[in-house]
Amino acid sequence: MNPEEFRTAGHVLIDWIADFRTRLPDLPVQSDRRPGDVRAAFPESVPAVTAGIDELTSLLDSVVVPGMTHFQHPRYFGFFPSNAGLASVLGDLASSGLGGLGITWQSCPALTEVEEVVCDWMRRLVGLSSAWRGTIYDTASTGALVAMLCARERATGYGAAGKGWQGTGQGLTVYCTSHAHSSVTKAAALAGYGAAHVRFVDVDPVSFAMDPESLAKAIAQDTGAGFRPAMVVATVGTTGTTAIDPIARIAEVAGESGAWLHIDAALAGAAMLLDDYRHLWEGVEDSDSLTWNPHKWLGTALDASLFYVRDVDHLIRVMSTNPSYLRSAVDGEATQYRDWGIPLGRRFRALKLLFQLRLDGVESIKQRLRRDLAFTNLLLSLIHEASDWMVLAPVPLQTICVRHQPPGLDGEAVDAHTLRWVASINDSGRAFLTPAQLEGRWMVRVSLGSEATEWEDVEELWRIMKEAVAGALATSVVQNLDD
Amino acid sequence: MNPEEFRTAGHVLIDWIADFRTRLPDLPVQSDRRPGDVRAAFPESVPAVTAGIDELTSLLDSVVVPGMTHFQHPRYFGFFPSNAGLASVLGDLASSGLGGLGITWQSCPALTEVEEVVCDWMRRLVGLSSAWRGTIYDTASTGALVAMLCARERATGYGAAGKGWQGTGQGLTVYCTSHAHSSVTKAAALAGYGAAHVRFVDVDPVSFAMDPESLAKAIAQDTGAGFRPAMVVATVGTTGTTAIDPIARIAEVAGESGAWLHIDAALAGAAMLLDDYRHLWEGVEDSDSLTWNPHKWLGTALDASLFYVRDVDHLIRVMSTNPSYLRSAVDGEATQYRDWGIPLGRRFRALKLLFQLRLDGVESIKQRLRRDLAFTNLLLSLIHEASDWMVLAPVPLQTICVRHQPPGLDGEAVDAHTLRWVASINDSGRAFLTPAQLEGRWMVRVSLGSEATEWEDVEELWRIMKEAVAGALATSVVQNLDD
Repeated sequence: MNPEEFRTAGHVLIDWIADFRTRLPDLPVQSDRRPGDVRAAFPESVPAVTAGIDELTSLLDSVVVPGMTHFQHPRYFGFFPSNAGLASVLGDLASSGLGGLGITWQSCPALTEVEEVVCDWMRRLVGLSSAWRGTIYDTASTGALVAMLCARERATGYGAAGKGWQGTGQGLTVYCTSHAHSSVTKAAALAGYGAAHVRFVDVDPVSFAMDPESLAKAIAQDTGAGFRPAMVVATVGTTGTTAIDPIARIAEVAGESGAWLHIDAALAGAAMLLDDYRHLWEGVEDSDSLTWNPHKWLGTALDASLFYVRDVDHLIRVMSTNPSYLRSAVDGEATQYRDWGIPLGRRFRALKLLFQLRLDGVESIKQRLRRDLAFTNLLLSLIHEASDWMVLAPVPLQTICVRHQPPGLDGEAVDAHTLRWVASINDSGRAFLTPAQLEGRWMVRVSLGSEATEWEDVEELWRIMKEAVAGALATSVVQNLDD
Repeated sequence: MNPEEFRTAGHVLIDWIADFRTRLPDLPVQSDRRPGDVRAAFPESVPAVTAGIDELTSLLDSVVVPGMTHFQHPRYFGFFPSNAGLASVLGDLASSGLGGLGITWQSCPALTEVEEVVCDWMRRLVGLSSAWRGTIYDTASTGALVAMLCARERATGYGAAGKGWQGTGQGLTVYCTSHAHSSVTKAAALAGYGAAHVRFVDVDPVSFAMDPESLAKAIAQDTGAGFRPAMVVATVGTTGTTAIDPIARIAEVAGESGAWLHIDAALAGAAMLLDDYRHLWEGVEDSDSLTWNPHKWLGTALDASLFYVRDVDHLIRVMSTNPSYLRSAVDGEATQYRDWGIPLGRRFRALKLLFQLRLDGVESIKQRLRRDLAFTNLLLSLIHEASDWMVLAPVPLQTICVRHQPPGLDGEAVDAHTLRWVASINDSGRAFLTPAQLEGRWMVRVSLGSEATEWEDVEELWRIMKEAVAGALATSVVQNLDD
C-alpha cells in the first residue's frame, strides 16, 4: 500500500471508528457469539483476491464488532475499566505511521527519550519522588515477572542468572495475599521459585488487605526453616475487591528481611493523580519496584503499563546483554531500554501517552476520574438503601462488590441465584458485570470507570440489576415448581 | 476526546502520515541527534495548557522525526528490515479504535479467533503442517524465553515451576552457537538455567552455521558430566550473517538427547512464503517450537512475532493460571490465549496481519520479497566484481556481510577503516548500515528489504559505499601525515 492509497483508506477508517464509537451505546455490551462462530466467518487460507478498505470495514461490522465484548461501552462495568481513549488512539497511530523501532538508543533516539519524558511526567503526576525511573511494558504481568527476577537475583547475588539456579541450596520464598493478581503466582512459577514457594499471607477479614503482622510471622517462620524470603508483592487495589494492602508497615517488615518489595498498583495508579487518594499507597517510597497501568482506568489504549524501579543499575544488570551489533558510540551516555525489559525490539509506545496528556490534558483526565469516583459513591448509596443487597468489601476506588441475598436463600442457593442474575444481565447485552468468588462464594463486581459512562448509564445499570434479581428469582420459582 | 473531535484530528493525522511517508526519501536516514537533545525539547512536567492536533504534528515534525533513524526509508540497510507496511498500520489503527481487550476468550471472542485464523493462515503460507498451533507475541525475545521455560519444565517434569528450581540437583544445559541472537543467552539467564550453562557449539568456518556433530559431542560431554541437555536453539538466518543452522540433523541430535528444539527464524520466516526457500528450514517439523517475526521483513507494523508450538498442552500447563474472575461458561471449548504467554491482557494484534494479508494480498507480498532477493543478488554481483571488497559469509537471504580491505592494511587498521567508512555513511544521512563483529573483526552488514527500496536506491548505496571507502582512506592518509 502506497502513501496515497493509505491516505484514502485511512480517511475511511477514521470515519468508521468515529461512527463506531458514536453508535456504541446501541450495541450489546457482551458478545453473544459462541466458540467457533467468529472463526467460521473466515476461509481456511488467505483468499487469493485482495480486498479494499470497504470490504475490511464491512468485515469489522459483520464479524468483528459482534464478536467483541465492548470495554468502551457506556454500560461496561466488567473486570476493570480498559479505556482506549481516542487521543491515545491517535498517538498510537502516529507510532505505527512513523514506523520507528527501539533496539538501541541510536536506532530511534526519540523513542527512548520521549519514553523517558512521559515516564517522568507520569511519575510527577502521581507524586513519586525523583528516586524512581520508569519504562513502559506491555502489561503488569510482565512487570511482576521482571520484579520477581530482580528479587531472585538480589537474593542470590546474581547467581540464578549467572551460574544457574539448579543446585542453589537455599529455597527462596515469595509473599502476597490470595487476593493478589494471578500474575504473581505465575511470575513465581516462571522465574523458577516454584508455585510451592508462594506464601499467601492472611488478610484482614473485613478489608481483605494484607495483615502485615501475619507477613512478619510468615517470614520469621520461613527464615527459621532455612528459607530465604526474597520477594513481597503488595497490591494497591486488588483485582477482586480493590483491597489496599498497607504498604508502609509491609515495607518495614520486608525491609527487615531483605526481601524485594514490589507494588502492584495496576488499577489504582490512576487514582494517584488525585492528591486526596495518595494516602492509599503511603509508604510506596520504601518499596523497590512499582507497576501501574495507564491502559486501564486512565484511558491509554493498550498496551501501556508503567514499570518504575529505584535501583536501575540492578535492573540493568539482571536484564542486559551486549552483542556487538547493538553497540554504538553513545553507549553509556544514553538510556538503553532494551536492558530494562524482556523484548529487544520496542514499539514507540510513549506517543500514546504523550498524545493523551497533551490533547486531553491532565485536568480533564482528573475530572473524569473524580466523576467516576462520584458515580461510584452515588451507586453505593443506592445499593445501601435497597433491601436484600449486601456490599461485601470496602470501596476505596471505583469497584463495588455486591451480592443480592433474598431472605430464605443460603449458601449454594445464593451462589446459583448470583450466577443466574448476572448471566441474565450479560446475556441481555444491556450491561456487563463480572462475577467472581470471594471467600468461596460468588459475588458480582461492579467496576465503574468506562470513559463513556454517564450518570444515566449507572442509573440504568441499577434498574437492570434490580430487574435481573427479580427475574432470576421468578425463574427459579418456576423451575422449582417444575421439579 | 469525543468521536467528532477524533474524526477531525484523525483526518489531519492520516494526511500527516501519508505526507511523511511520501517525503521520507528526502530525510536523513540516521538521526543526528545527540543523547539528551530530544528530551531537552520537553518541559519537566506536563504543560497545563492542552494542545490541538496541529501542535502535535508540529512536534512530530520538529522533534520526533529528526530524532528517528528511519527504518521505513528507502536507503535504510541497517540491522534488519523492520517494515511498518501501511496496510498493517490501518489494521493496528482498527485495533486501537475498537478498544477490545483479550483476557479471556469471552472478553473478546473475535480477538482470540481472528488470531487463530491469521496464525493458521500464516502457518499454511510458510508450509508448516497442521501439527503446529500459533499465537502472536511482541517479539522473538519473548518467544525464546517461553520456549526456554517449556524446555525447563519438560526436563524437570514441571518441577521448576511447581516445587521450585532451588535445590533441584541436576544442572540443565542449553545449546546454540555464538551467532544465535542475544535473546537466547538472556532467556537462559532469566529462566534460571544461568548463562554459565549456555554452550556455544562450534560453527562451520565458512557458513557460520552450527556444526551438528559438534552439538552431538557437546551434548555427550555434558551428559557424561552429569548435566541434562534441555534446550537446543537453532537459528534460520542469524542476526550477524543470516547463517542457516542445519535443522534436520540438529533435530536428530536434539531428539536423541530429549532436549527441546526451538527454531529462531525471526528474520528468515518471511522467506518461507517462497517455495524455493523452504529447503532452508528442512527438518523444521521435527522441532518443538518456532518463532518468526512478520514485523521484520514481511512488513507488519510492530509488534507482531509469531510463536508456534506442537505440544500446546505442555505450553498451557507451563503458562496457565485459573483464578475465579477469569472463569467463564465456555472454558474448555475456547482457546484461552492468556495461558499461551506471559501477559494476561492482550491487544488485538491479529488485525494488523489480517489487514495486510487482505489489503496487500499474498502475491504482492511475495513479489516484494522476490524483488528484495533479486536486488541482493544484483548488489552481490557488483561487490564481487569490485576490487578490495570481500564478501565474508554466504548470502542465503537478503543480507550481505562485507569488508573493504585495501592492500597494505591489516587487522586493527582495517577495523579502524571499516568503522570510519561506515560512520561516514551513517553520519551523512544518505544511507544507513550496521557494523558488527565477525570472528573478532569489524565488518558491515548490508541488510536489504525496506519496503520503499527501489533498485536506484541500491545503486545509490553502492556509489555511496565506494565514495565512503575512498574518503575514509584519504582522511586516514591526511591524519597519518599530520601525525
